[in-house]
Amino acid sequence: MHILVLGAAGMVGRKLTERLLRDGRLGDREISRMTLHDVVAPTKPANAAIPISVVTSDFADPDTAASLVGHRPYRINLDGTRMLLDAIRLAGGGYKPRAVFTSSIAVFGAPFPEAIGDEFFQTPLLSYGTQKAICELLLADYSRRGFMDGIGIRLPTICIRPGLPNKAASGFFSNILREPLAGKEAVLPVSEDVRHWHASPRPAVGFLIHAATMDSATAGARRNLTMPGLSATVGEEIAALKRVAGDKVAARIKREPDPFIMSIVDGWPRNFDARRARQLGFTTAEQTFDDIIKIHIEDELGGKFVA
Amino acid sequence: MHILVLGAAGMVGRKLTERLLRDGRLGDREISRMTLHDVVAPTKPANAAIPISVVTSDFADPDTAASLVGHRPYRINLDGTRMLLDAIRLAGGGYKPRAVFTSSIAVFGAPFPEAIGDEFFQTPLLSYGTQKAICELLLADYSRRGFMDGIGIRLPTICIRPGLPNKAASGFFSNILREPLAGKEAVLPVSEDVRHWHASPRPAVGFLIHAATMDSATAGARRNLTMPGLSATVGEEIAALKRVAGDKVAARIKREPDPFIMSIVDGWPRNFDARRARQLGFTTAEQTFDDIIKIHIEDELGGKFVA
Repeated sequence: MHILVLGAAGMVGRKLTERLLRDGRLGDREISRMTLHDVVAPTKPANAAIPISVVTSDFADPDTAASLVGHRPYRINLDGTRMLLDAIRLAGGGYKPRAVFTSSIAVFGAPFPEAIGDEFFQTPLLSYGTQKAICELLLADYSRRGFMDGIGIRLPTICIRPGLPNKAASGFFSNILREPLAGKEAVLPVSEDVRHWHASPRPAVGFLIHAATMDSATAGARRNLTMPGLSATVGEEIAALKRVAGDKVAARIKREPDPFIMSIVDGWPRNFDARRARQLGFTTAEQTFDDIIKIHIEDELGGKFVA
Repeated sequence: MHILVLGAAGMVGRKLTERLLRDGRLGDREISRMTLHDVVAPTKPANAAIPISVVTSDFADPDTAASLVGHRPYRINLDGTRMLLDAIRLAGGGYKPRAVFTSSIAVFGAPFPEAIGDEFFQTPLLSYGTQKAICELLLADYSRRGFMDGIGIRLPTICIRPGLPNKAASGFFSNILREPLAGKEAVLPVSEDVRHWHASPRPAVGFLIHAATMDSATAGARRNLTMPGLSATVGEEIAALKRVAGDKVAARIKREPDPFIMSIVDGWPRNFDARRARQLGFTTAEQTFDDIIKIHIEDELGGKFVA
């Protein structure tokens, strides 16, 4: 096998190279060749029994790695955010605006504790969540260095999302309430025991306003916050719909289990202990799922629904 | 004040804009102007009492944001690693190499629990740690997507680092042992109760080898691991030096407290519960700081030191 050692000129890189040459194998595979790379020239080991190439270059040089430009997966959420942060950083003249970043609970990945605390680690299971987690890190570091004054807020899944049925995997949480309230059928692709974390659009807007106006010093260096929300099962959602709008409305939900959506949703957070955000003044508008449904009827449907 | 809303065409962006226009103020400041931005054109609210600009562009377009190229702070550790990951991704032909990423305990930032567990969150307090944390996220996501087969290992601070005294803020942990063993004086800039997390170069190399050969499936989606180490105070380091090499050697340590270095070190991890890495087969070579010093004398000094 051919082994590429990056940072081969460094202390650990040199010791690793020595050890690999001494062993002649990595695990159960024989080492047939090695390439030693660093930004400064690594010393080529003398008397090695195998061919060793030494390469000195800088991967961060755009001329030698044009591939970044062609890299689509993280284009909008990572490169876009970073370029914006850099535009702020480079603006000069003491410009240090409050920047509110809308992050997501997708920065977390299963398995989870029963309620995810404020110090739980970020192991996203989607590239979307990966990009959000990276932007959170950049926001915290740019703020620490005084380039900007950022606050990142991880919004719960918004429910009830107004508008047309959403094609996102999370769309059904809203669809099964919004569509029946409008007299239409909706598909439920998961079982009723699926638990998830929600907020209505009202507190979502309130969170953004509070993040823009709060004293950011109270957040210290930990500027990314899980927003408060309501943890509920799909079954609890449906029970609330029955209480608020009646059985006839709830009967418009059609159960069509979808294994693909179920597998995605399995990796999603179910519940949080969002203590820190509450302490920093972020408040919700709803105490129950009944409230979430009533807020939708009030704010989006002019107080009426199709019974 | 002038408010810029990014993602203004989205649901929450629209609702936020409506709310801000209705309030006419953000916190205690009057809103004099708004700019609504999105990659698709946001709808300009009708009858607004203040000037509203609508901007449609793509921040991720390199032509409109040439600043990325000029962005130095994260050049080597972030852009370099990312370009390398992309080179692997774009190599084609089913190329999916094991990639071992040397991360750092600098991904963590104070305040800490007594021992940092495997699920503790990453809130780095240096740009170095920020870049490492971002690369960890990329490595996990590229591996999840099948572009590569990555394992990230967070090395403890290596002690005793061979070579010349290191100018890094962490250099003294090694300096106060290595220099006295070579008959030279060394400066201790912090107090003896400073606790930190260490490993000798031997297990550091062993960790890299194990990460390159282990069954990565056992790590699942959580591919970044805190390596085992030894938690010790500077006082315990010095006591070990006295036991292994004698009081005369230890007397070569000069105490010169440096408030700047002390303030940096205050934010560093002191102890870990690195259970997961041990379960996955990562093992240390030393049980005590005496072992760390003996390994240095054996591996670097040919078994002798200047008494």
